[in-house]
Amino acid sequence: MKDLKEFVRDIPDFPKEGVVYKDISPLLQDPEAMHRAVELFLEKLDGIKIDKVIGIEARGFFFATLLAEKLNAGFIPLRKPGKLPYKTIKEEYALEYGTDSLEIHEDAFERGEKILIHDDVLATGGTALAACKLVERMGGEIAQCDFLVELEFLNGREKLKGYQIESLLKY
Amino acid sequence: MKDLKEFVRDIPDFPKEGVVYKDISPLLQDPEAMHRAVELFLEKLDGIKIDKVIGIEARGFFFATLLAEKLNAGFIPLRKPGKLPYKTIKEEYALEYGTDSLEIHEDAFERGEKILIHDDVLATGGTALAACKLVERMGGEIAQCDFLVELEFLNGREKLKGYQIESLLKY
Repeated sequence: MKDLKEFVRDIPDFPKEGVVYKDISPLLQDPEAMHRAVELFLEKLDGIKIDKVIGIEARGFFFATLLAEKLNAGFIPLRKPGKLPYKTIKEEYALEYGTDSLEIHEDAFERGEKILIHDDVLATGGTALAACKLVERMGGEIAQCDFLVELEFLNGREKLKGYQIESLLKY
Repeated sequence: MKDLKEFVRDIPDFPKEGVVYKDISPLLQDPEAMHRAVELFLEKLDGIKIDKVIGIEARGFFFATLLAEKLNAGFIPLRKPGKLPYKTIKEEYALEYGTDSLEIHEDAFERGEKILIHDDVLATGGTALAACKLVERMGGEIAQCDFLVELEFLNGREKLKGYQIESLLKY
């Protein structure tokens, strides 16, 4: 089949001027490409046992449930503040201007469980790092962080030093 | 295994006072329960051919990609305004106070394709109806709308009359 990069299109000036956004919609719309991406994610895990897969709101949800199902693991959404209905634990992180935060249910997993963190894009790594910190505060063990797209020029991998980082499509 | 309803918990006064929210997080965290839910969704489809599965932002994404994969169909996210990067078509719908809207990429599917619309909860049906109208405006054929949870006392099924509606957990 075609290279997966052929299912990603550039959108200039989104979400703001000067940014070229990598739109994965064509990949999501193609069952064969979706299937191939899942296969590649599983290869990167190379048999590592995963108890729970965390998907980061919202595009991280697309592949996180698929990976959870293939790994026979549970799925946990990491969400923007106020979205989760039960008791939550929160982690703030810096944005270019100001801060944002992510929440997780306090009973989402047990201490010592092996966690896979998934998001669609690794950019500066701020969001993923917040996710890692949150999981560790709760006693989880981060087995891997994986991403469909990695924007290498933003050095997210540097910010996540010490964690096992995998991505399928590097730009 | 346990009944799937045992994996849904009541959260009183969420998202606002007087509402009892059905929290599906325990179900998502349990691989066996997730697997069972997917099986039940597939049974409800009873072999209907699906070309694309639409998941409604954001909790509709959880099962929509899983269903797409099992059906060998593509996945399409229906999103809140401003989230999709490419050219979109929009549908407004009424809320209790005011309006909201959903967007879809204009090239998300071809005319005549068979579409499964999925969301986590069927409440008043306003969101799902907007999704149906949007798909039909684009020439898609709605094969079924399915929901994990149906709040029967809100009569969403009535609002969606004429469409095939399926849900796994009725309250």
